[in-house]
Amino acid sequence: MKIPEDHPRYRSLVARECLARMVREGLVTPTGMISHGRGEAFDYLMGERTLDSAMKAEKAATAFLMNAKNPVICVNGNAVALDPGRIIELAGKVKAKIEVNIFHRTEERMELLISHMEKAGAENVLGRDPDARIPGISSDRALCTKEGIFDSDVILVPIEDGDRAQALAAMGKIVIAIDLNPLSRTSAAASVSIADEMSRALENMIGFSGMKRTEIEDSAFGFDNASNRRDTVEEICRNLRSQFEGKT
Amino acid sequence: MKIPEDHPRYRSLVARECLARMVREGLVTPTGMISHGRGEAFDYLMGERTLDSAMKAEKAATAFLMNAKNPVICVNGNAVALDPGRIIELAGKVKAKIEVNIFHRTEERMELLISHMEKAGAENVLGRDPDARIPGISSDRALCTKEGIFDSDVILVPIEDGDRAQALAAMGKIVIAIDLNPLSRTSAAASVSIADEMSRALENMIGFSGMKRTEIEDSAFGFDNASNRRDTVEEICRNLRSQFEGKT
Repeated sequence: MKIPEDHPRYRSLVARECLARMVREGLVTPTGMISHGRGEAFDYLMGERTLDSAMKAEKAATAFLMNAKNPVICVNGNAVALDPGRIIELAGKVKAKIEVNIFHRTEERMELLISHMEKAGAENVLGRDPDARIPGISSDRALCTKEGIFDSDVILVPIEDGDRAQALAAMGKIVIAIDLNPLSRTSAAASVSIADEMSRALENMIGFSGMKRTEIEDSAFGFDNASNRRDTVEEICRNLRSQFEGKT
Repeated sequence: MKIPEDHPRYRSLVARECLARMVREGLVTPTGMISHGRGEAFDYLMGERTLDSAMKAEKAATAFLMNAKNPVICVNGNAVALDPGRIIELAGKVKAKIEVNIFHRTEERMELLISHMEKAGAENVLGRDPDARIPGISSDRALCTKEGIFDSDVILVPIEDGDRAQALAAMGKIVIAIDLNPLSRTSAAASVSIADEMSRALENMIGFSGMKRTEIEDSAFGFDNASNRRDTVEEICRNLRSQFEGKT
């Protein structure tokens, strides 16, 4: 199906078609599609644009990544399918490693996802040969590499599940979540909760990665996640009302 | 995967697994999973329960169906997959016909969906041999039967797309939508917009189908859809705030 480029929801429709193709190819699971749909609903409530609160969180997140000793971007099937290019670009800017970590893990699916990242230009994608486990997680999502997720001090998790976000926080890491639902357990567990669509968030973070050293410290240490999340909830309510008024 | 029956989100998780199986069997499309996910997000914002405003809409909807000359329940892949039993039960109570109507139409998929309804006990499911078209729709969703959708005066559409809801309303029908998104084009186009999860909505409507004649007229003609939708939006905002307060 060809989607016209001037369609008001072009990016959203392209993402949807891309994921449907990736389900057929085995990179994305059917339940990954449901999770994408949940995100779409929140994005819709935000007017499919970056809220002011999300922009603040994105700036702080970039600062934390730039300040880290061993920053890691941890990606699942949906993240790899949706925007490998921006993941690689941000990793390059903030000198982060990339590791694939999935719930429905098979060697075949890991290989598909890692090759997909490599074809998009990633050079050293971790995850093929796990040699450590995240404590407190019983599923295969516990499997990780020591040099990557396990030893990371700051970890960016676009599209994460609540159990693992909590387990990573419990390890003492600074967890940066990109999750469109500001009420999710992931958003609640994270140190920096970015309620924004993944590609928009990555694009903004790539933009912020040119920050000067002094600005980095201000952005990271001046950031109040709880109050920022509250602003997100208020912004969503305002949008919900104004969208309704515009449509009745 | 076995889901424990006492899990707080049991019904939601069972629905998710059921749809994932139906994608593998060809009844549900991958993009149908995204649509289900969008619904889940709104359901989450409602606290996964029937709001007062939805209950009012469900009563009015049942009254309209009971008062109709030719009521039809029009179902797509997700509806058939999720709850054939309650669709059949409600159809029996309000003497409505059932017709399958899908966007991604192939003869094979139509046969799968109709047989699925028949296996669940439905006796005369329309949709196999369309002999009419809904005006103003260019896709295969226009295909319908004259005795069913085309000649219906009241039509219940659980999980509908905006274009078709508008086209059905333009034909002068009373359109009853079950759509968790109170802001969707479908909700905006409907005469009665039920913002509730489909199975809960059907269950409540089955309960209302014992109404007496006088109550039917009061419920149908005393219903104000615009003001009811506004109440839904306000209830969602209240929930969003209280869920956030409970979780921070």
